[in-house]
Amino acid sequence: MAGKVHLIGAGPGDPELLTLRALRLMQSADVVVYDRLVSSAIMDLIPARTRRISVGKASGFHSLPQDRINALLVDLARQGLTVARLKGGDPLIFGRGSEEAEVLRDAGIAYDYTPGITAAQGAASSTGVPLTHRGLASGVRYVTGHRAQDATLTLDWGSLADPDSTLVVYMGAANIADIASNLIAHNLPGATPVMALSHATTPVERRLLSTLDRIGADVADNPMDAPVLFVIGRVVSMYGQSALPLPADLTAPLRMAANG
Amino acid sequence: MAGKVHLIGAGPGDPELLTLRALRLMQSADVVVYDRLVSSAIMDLIPARTRRISVGKASGFHSLPQDRINALLVDLARQGLTVARLKGGDPLIFGRGSEEAEVLRDAGIAYDYTPGITAAQGAASSTGVPLTHRGLASGVRYVTGHRAQDATLTLDWGSLADPDSTLVVYMGAANIADIASNLIAHNLPGATPVMALSHATTPVERRLLSTLDRIGADVADNPMDAPVLFVIGRVVSMYGQSALPLPADLTAPLRMAANG
Repeated sequence: MAGKVHLIGAGPGDPELLTLRALRLMQSADVVVYDRLVSSAIMDLIPARTRRISVGKASGFHSLPQDRINALLVDLARQGLTVARLKGGDPLIFGRGSEEAEVLRDAGIAYDYTPGITAAQGAASSTGVPLTHRGLASGVRYVTGHRAQDATLTLDWGSLADPDSTLVVYMGAANIADIASNLIAHNLPGATPVMALSHATTPVERRLLSTLDRIGADVADNPMDAPVLFVIGRVVSMYGQSALPLPADLTAPLRMAANG
Repeated sequence: MAGKVHLIGAGPGDPELLTLRALRLMQSADVVVYDRLVSSAIMDLIPARTRRISVGKASGFHSLPQDRINALLVDLARQGLTVARLKGGDPLIFGRGSEEAEVLRDAGIAYDYTPGITAAQGAASSTGVPLTHRGLASGVRYVTGHRAQDATLTLDWGSLADPDSTLVVYMGAANIADIASNLIAHNLPGATPVMALSHATTPVERRLLSTLDRIGADVADNPMDAPVLFVIGRVVSMYGQSALPLPADLTAPLRMAANG
């Protein structure tokens, strides 16, 4: 009897931001294969008897290589098991869900996708900073700031430096100074507001407000847990105009909030 | 006693793609104010006794103007009611959630946001076409193809015509021929694959596969219900490679699937 793999987005961290479908599939699976970015509060929703396999890296340890994860999913499905493959965010936005799907397809194993709230959406709803807003941003763009070891960032800076679009950089903490200087070199104003977030939508959310010309130094002075998400663009100027309750433990320096 | 407004994303259509938080807030509200894009399957999850107010346009009828919606939300909250303001997709991605929030803030009314699965994510999970994929798209961008009456589309075509990024056009049916020819004029290849979707994630989902140089004519020949979402970029070439079950009633012409 053939098994099946459900490739599931677990959202940004808050368990209440799971979709109904994600919860149902997690709770009915024979085995849950999960990344480090899936919070323990979410894993607590799985029945105690359900087998669970961590494939994500913890601090100081390497994660299971992608080909080992692929082989594990194939092996479990071939045992006739229903597998819930849980990923942080959305499996089809920087989630490598479609890479795992290619391997499953080639092995003749059935699979499907369940979308999840991606980190940018979690950050927006938590802080009240919209991703689009009339007169400030006519669109939004997601890129990754991560680069493979020894590789250079090969982003199309001229295309990214669009003042009418919100730019969200995923996994950018290590390279944000480089990213910011490239954007400034391509005519995005240094005064463009930037918001950095870590653990958005969870009780340990941290935020840092800065500007494009200072974000590199500000992040270096105020380290945040990875992964860090950066929201760059005029929409960030709406931060602090919000009636949303703000946490008391905001990461310094919050220059914009003080000056605005 | 002051009321409160919850600005809630209802996702792309499938009620199972609601978040747990969205469902809880809908079911506990005194009154639900909803757009046309919120499906009846979702409205059926609200208790029968809950008051509901439609502010969305139906075919041939104008929607309530935005300032009337704003005034309605303020009025309901001032009556001490807890209001669930349900929007299709995500309230902070082309949802005007932050415009309604500005009015609530100025009126001193408490509010918060709940993100929703946006249409691009629903389309990706339903079709198996990823929004990012190693070697095909290093990022994804959302823009709106809608323009106000008599206005011209003022998009930064040079920035948008980035072959390494997936481009998703929301509400673009009326202007897709214009959008496609501008992208081609800015050096995006005419053979770039394009997928158009209507009602993604619902039982009446329709899909049309084409290329940038033919999408205008193909949509004209095969009208789809609004709003239509367009996914433009190399990731669309993964369509049909998928092990996902495909619906039998795909909209013609599906040229790529036939030729690929």
